[in-house]
Amino acid sequence: MAVDDHGPYARLMGRSKEIFVLGSAISILQWDMETKMPPKGRGMRAEQLSALELLAHKKITDPEVARMLEACEGDIASFDAVQRRNVHLMRRSYDESVRLPDALVAETAKHQTICNGSWKRAKAAKDFGLFRDDLAKMIDLRMQAADILQEVKGTRTQYDALLDLFEPGMTSERIAEVFKGLRDGLIRLIDKVRSSGTEPDMSVLARRVPISAQRRISSEAMAFIGFDTTSPEAGGRLDETEHPFTTGSFDDVRITTHYYENRFFSSLFSVLHEGGHALYDQGIPREWMYQPVGTPCSYGVHESQSRFVENIVGRSPEFLSYALPRFRKISPNAFKGLKGKDIIAAVNAVVPSKVRIEADEVTYALHIIIRFEIERDIFAGKVTVDELPRLWDQKYSDYLGVKVEDDAEGVLQDTHWSGGSFGYFPSYALGNIYSGMFLEKMEDDVPEWRESVRKGDFSPVLRWLRANVHSKGDLYDPAELVKVVTGKEMDVAPFLGYLEGKMSRIYGF
Amino acid sequence: MAVDDHGPYARLMGRSKEIFVLGSAISILQWDMETKMPPKGRGMRAEQLSALELLAHKKITDPEVARMLEACEGDIASFDAVQRRNVHLMRRSYDESVRLPDALVAETAKHQTICNGSWKRAKAAKDFGLFRDDLAKMIDLRMQAADILQEVKGTRTQYDALLDLFEPGMTSERIAEVFKGLRDGLIRLIDKVRSSGTEPDMSVLARRVPISAQRRISSEAMAFIGFDTTSPEAGGRLDETEHPFTTGSFDDVRITTHYYENRFFSSLFSVLHEGGHALYDQGIPREWMYQPVGTPCSYGVHESQSRFVENIVGRSPEFLSYALPRFRKISPNAFKGLKGKDIIAAVNAVVPSKVRIEADEVTYALHIIIRFEIERDIFAGKVTVDELPRLWDQKYSDYLGVKVEDDAEGVLQDTHWSGGSFGYFPSYALGNIYSGMFLEKMEDDVPEWRESVRKGDFSPVLRWLRANVHSKGDLYDPAELVKVVTGKEMDVAPFLGYLEGKMSRIYGF
Repeated sequence: MAVDDHGPYARLMGRSKEIFVLGSAISILQWDMETKMPPKGRGMRAEQLSALELLAHKKITDPEVARMLEACEGDIASFDAVQRRNVHLMRRSYDESVRLPDALVAETAKHQTICNGSWKRAKAAKDFGLFRDDLAKMIDLRMQAADILQEVKGTRTQYDALLDLFEPGMTSERIAEVFKGLRDGLIRLIDKVRSSGTEPDMSVLARRVPISAQRRISSEAMAFIGFDTTSPEAGGRLDETEHPFTTGSFDDVRITTHYYENRFFSSLFSVLHEGGHALYDQGIPREWMYQPVGTPCSYGVHESQSRFVENIVGRSPEFLSYALPRFRKISPNAFKGLKGKDIIAAVNAVVPSKVRIEADEVTYALHIIIRFEIERDIFAGKVTVDELPRLWDQKYSDYLGVKVEDDAEGVLQDTHWSGGSFGYFPSYALGNIYSGMFLEKMEDDVPEWRESVRKGDFSPVLRWLRANVHSKGDLYDPAELVKVVTGKEMDVAPFLGYLEGKMSRIYGF
Repeated sequence: MAVDDHGPYARLMGRSKEIFVLGSAISILQWDMETKMPPKGRGMRAEQLSALELLAHKKITDPEVARMLEACEGDIASFDAVQRRNVHLMRRSYDESVRLPDALVAETAKHQTICNGSWKRAKAAKDFGLFRDDLAKMIDLRMQAADILQEVKGTRTQYDALLDLFEPGMTSERIAEVFKGLRDGLIRLIDKVRSSGTEPDMSVLARRVPISAQRRISSEAMAFIGFDTTSPEAGGRLDETEHPFTTGSFDDVRITTHYYENRFFSSLFSVLHEGGHALYDQGIPREWMYQPVGTPCSYGVHESQSRFVENIVGRSPEFLSYALPRFRKISPNAFKGLKGKDIIAAVNAVVPSKVRIEADEVTYALHIIIRFEIERDIFAGKVTVDELPRLWDQKYSDYLGVKVEDDAEGVLQDTHWSGGSFGYFPSYALGNIYSGMFLEKMEDDVPEWRESVRKGDFSPVLRWLRANVHSKGDLYDPAELVKVVTGKEMDVAPFLGYLEGKMSRIYGF
């Protein structure tokens, strides 16, 4: 349809832009809170975030939006595919928001900041008790939202309604089913690893690399993948936080990492992981800027991009062989006498652990399955806040065979719940599954990619990701996107096959 | 009056809070733009700032505000002094804003970001031509606003209406009169300095101080004045920008400085200057938070606080005698063989210069007088944009006897016009005048302050500033505040007397 500049579709896109701009301002304020804000500023920041969230909420729930939507929907046959998707996505946002009371939105936004503060204090003190009340209130606030969203979306459970916010179209039933196949496959793989008798020398990971050298390596890693933070036309930056994250869109995308002298690879893989997110955020088609379709597809697809860059490329023998001489040049002492083979084995070693963000590629999804089951039970009323620490520790013992010593390395390890992001965790494992499917397709399309990476050239991979994933923006729901890209339904086999291939070479089975 | 929680006064204060919170979010976005933002992010930042400025504008110009104001004004006799002032300040904001069209507000906000970008490029290229068109548009936008504000405020000229935004109650006639006395006094003083035959050795200012040492000295300087950036309860931070500035309020106040190896004192005095601003922002009574009265009085009074800390304390023989051994401890080589007497002479030396922010205390106001005259003539239609570079250079030759070599050190030196802040500059010289009056009073109240500073104790000075200036918030217009604090009308004599006293000791006249 040729768009009338003052017609309902143009006005709807104008509204989309207003909401996008407010959202991008909120992102900067949140980034600042995590990276730069003086500690005392938290109270005022809560007020700012709450005010802007409320304003964005009012922009999408305005009755005028309903009228624009109805006018567009009445004429939908004359719209092209992108326009139809834009109308659909605005409708979804409107329906998700319009029934949520302003007071609930404002209170949730304000409580996120407060709750995040008490989570940080509780984690530092290793004491869930300091977080308990604020978490209970957060669960209550999200339950109120989930009750409403369940009705609006017609999902089977409240938790499904929350899941749908992160992974549209996904249900806890479907996730449970997929996760079952994933868990069985992973456990078989862990058994093979165990029985191989091979044990990589993990001490190479604890080699001390001076932080100044790690910073230089971060810069090289970002340059390798093409995330520009230094040129006069840079659209990105790197900062330091305890928990690495990515935020932003298009021309202003920011990643963070952390540096510990004796955990060099943790910072390297954080930079590659967050860099994978950042490339996606920067790779959305510019002609869709400010339109609903001009955003990433879902949290799971986002995670597939970060894992692709971190794990599939970053932990590949090819990348590590290319990178090691470069690391050695920057910090000769730290890497003296290290063999590529040993690094490859150590960074891919399968070692059940207590902390999700330190988990290896094989056991990682088990951490997610634990969180998925707990969240599902919280919102089904089957578990109370007070039971969480014990339930957490029990599942870690059952699924991963590890003993959690304190709340900081247990139930307090992740920030997500303090922000009310229930339903987010499954995206991480879905990201693994999608990344395996994308890899399978890329192997067909660009069989020479490993050879390119070995020579230090990431561009064929980035081109493939840009063409097949980034350029699609939010044109499809995730299951549909995966089908468009790969021609297949969601399937854990490619991811399991990829892991089996890599592990069999490392562990010799 | 006992305040009814749902009455018009309470609702008016609720609106004040909403506007304050939006303004504080805008400050963070502006700070980020100056300190952290990737260069490519400028376009999206312009959208964000424009959107938030427009939202704040709508909040204050809402017809509901007019109704609240009328209800309060109808009952004003029953209000206490603070409440009356709050109503008066909201009325002033409302009147200043309500007639400005939304489109003008949004366009000005967006153009600020664009114009700031072209100013930076023009300054880097030393080419006014690259800034000319955006500056012309900015003048046009501010002229449109000034036309409206002149009518609303009933000022004699458009420029007076702009001045009143920064220094309520001040007129260009009054400023011209005060500046005449100031200029005459300064020129007499410059003559005395010249005829003294004394010439401080300025080479001590160019001693190379490693930047790491300068950073440590900044930390000590902030600790000295009590600006906390390091504790777990810190409400401040320090960053680096070419042009130092301060932003924020209450619990989140941020200052910036710059470091050049061979300009150590420039960073020291920037930290003290911005630190003086920051102490004021943090010293507003907490019980007035979010109320109109819970803000600093005016730009001139703000500047009096920064100059008090930078010049009256920071350039005093007492502070420098205290600080020199500490500098020497941090960087023994840089300060080897330096005598306190020589530093005191050099940092107070009177040397007419081309760049305002490098000017000494005596010639500084002449830079301001030049800008005041040019701005007044721009808004009186007596000078065109194209004439600015030549007019600028001419006045610098006439008033300061210096020859400007290029636009970067001439008409492009300051950022203010790129942000549309016409009427701001006079505040700097008014700040000097106020600071002299405050000093005269503090000398009476706390005669031992110099002795305390010599011993490294700034607290008697801070206590006096807190009790006499900071704690008054925006309870009075600036001229009234000065009268309340000092018992006198605005007068240049104390400032000139203070300078004469210091210079006579240094130059021996």
